[in-house]
Amino acid sequence: MKIDKNWFTETNDELGIAFSLKIKQKLFDEQSPYQRIEVYETETFGNLMVIDGYVMLTDRDNFIYHEMMSHPVLFTHDQPERVAIIGGGDCGTLREVLKHKEVKQVWQIDIDELVTRASEKYFPKLCGSNNDPRAAILFGDGIEWIKNAEPDSLDIIIVDSTDPIGPAAGLFTEAFFRDCYKALRTGGILIQQSESPLLHMESIIKPMHDAMRAAGYSDTASLHFFQCSYPSGWWTATMACKKVACKEVTNKEVAHKDSKIWGFRESDADNRCFQTLYYNTATHKAAFAKPEFFRKQLAHFHSDG
Amino acid sequence: MKIDKNWFTETNDELGIAFSLKIKQKLFDEQSPYQRIEVYETETFGNLMVIDGYVMLTDRDNFIYHEMMSHPVLFTHDQPERVAIIGGGDCGTLREVLKHKEVKQVWQIDIDELVTRASEKYFPKLCGSNNDPRAAILFGDGIEWIKNAEPDSLDIIIVDSTDPIGPAAGLFTEAFFRDCYKALRTGGILIQQSESPLLHMESIIKPMHDAMRAAGYSDTASLHFFQCSYPSGWWTATMACKKVACKEVTNKEVAHKDSKIWGFRESDADNRCFQTLYYNTATHKAAFAKPEFFRKQLAHFHSDG
Repeated sequence: MKIDKNWFTETNDELGIAFSLKIKQKLFDEQSPYQRIEVYETETFGNLMVIDGYVMLTDRDNFIYHEMMSHPVLFTHDQPERVAIIGGGDCGTLREVLKHKEVKQVWQIDIDELVTRASEKYFPKLCGSNNDPRAAILFGDGIEWIKNAEPDSLDIIIVDSTDPIGPAAGLFTEAFFRDCYKALRTGGILIQQSESPLLHMESIIKPMHDAMRAAGYSDTASLHFFQCSYPSGWWTATMACKKVACKEVTNKEVAHKDSKIWGFRESDADNRCFQTLYYNTATHKAAFAKPEFFRKQLAHFHSDG
Repeated sequence: MKIDKNWFTETNDELGIAFSLKIKQKLFDEQSPYQRIEVYETETFGNLMVIDGYVMLTDRDNFIYHEMMSHPVLFTHDQPERVAIIGGGDCGTLREVLKHKEVKQVWQIDIDELVTRASEKYFPKLCGSNNDPRAAILFGDGIEWIKNAEPDSLDIIIVDSTDPIGPAAGLFTEAFFRDCYKALRTGGILIQQSESPLLHMESIIKPMHDAMRAAGYSDTASLHFFQCSYPSGWWTATMACKKVACKEVTNKEVAHKDSKIWGFRESDADNRCFQTLYYNTATHKAAFAKPEFFRKQLAHFHSDG
């Protein structure tokens, strides 16, 4: 069986890998001022959104990414009331964040309104909470929005961005992490998608930890999870905390020998009043487990020991 | 960038997905009595072995699979002395098993000698322990070998097979699991590669648990790990124990709320005298974490609760 016009292929020439999904039809193809957005109906993964040739999400496997970008950080913070989502235009992360009753206000700032319009039409389930009165769906430059945010005003910042090329490049810089730091309250947490340990350890993950620490955060940790339609199928999100939030584990039961788990409202997570498909207390803890090579790469942070 | 003759592509038409690696050259292409074996030099993943069009392993990411097929089960068994590997012709699992000093004898039974000959030439690191005096590298039908094995003679059986089509189909049956049960000593453990939770939950993983229980095993559990070059990047191995070995967790510290971790010689694992790249006590425990949908699919086994 050849890869022909019946397949969508994401080719990563530099990484030497490609991933293909068999398609039934193209549903949408528009160029916004920022990027080209396509939506396909696939044979086995439901609808697929592609931005500038790269897979953004599919119906079938987006649940892992969206749950892991939101529930671990929300169940780590003691009282997450004010949340900003930078990027996230498909609204899947927003939907998960709004499942938390403690959350009083969420601002979502994506640069590209067309992503949200396409998601509303082709991924309506992800947009099911867009009318929640706690949600403000804004379109603009997330970097500027964070820079202009009132200092000490946010509990959580979730950076749900595309890869660090194009409009998202500025989100992977120490300057941006400093602006986030300023906008966070004491105890606040920044979490950012941070690509694949197999493919981007040296180029993105390690520099991100270094830049976050340099920007003043007192601790950082990466969460690992499966993401089939992203390169290598192994993805991370990296958390950084402002001062006291990332407290040491006080409950011995949640401490892995080689991987510290940040303060975790475990009984709240266990008694959550909403449905998940991937997330639970077991996968929350497991996500903090550092593979041996990963642990060694970050061993210069003594608090990661 | 198009997928052309400079790429090797594994196409799973039924699953609607394909994975491609950019290649420099083909190094080997022979038909054995059982299957077609190819080896390529890739641009970014080192050498790649392909059997009947399916990726078997690459230099870059085989470490995860081989470590997770061996160290968790060996550090679960109290005293793993006699080990059989069914399949495993590339010898990577054998190498990991032989890192354990407690192991006195390993029989590796692969049906296809050509796999081992190709591995010796193109994956020499994986074959670095082939001359260990504890290792017997046999070529023949693993199903027959297990059927004829002395009852109560093995501590661990590792089924490191290809997908359940072709020569490996018979390894995914209750009859085979019964033969393994007979060959295992009390306390013995069977572990078998069991494909992807995202793609094969209904077709392989759940039926495997059911068949293992039906064959008499007192407990079963799947380990989850990343495997970039296999479909979805998310792979499992499923363990089944004969009577007492899969003891309930006695150490509260290793119990996840939603995922029981089998008896674990944690301090032995922590003080292991060999190098690993993925495996450590944190990833051992994390591998047992059951995602929410996975837990619900297997909820009929009350001991998995």
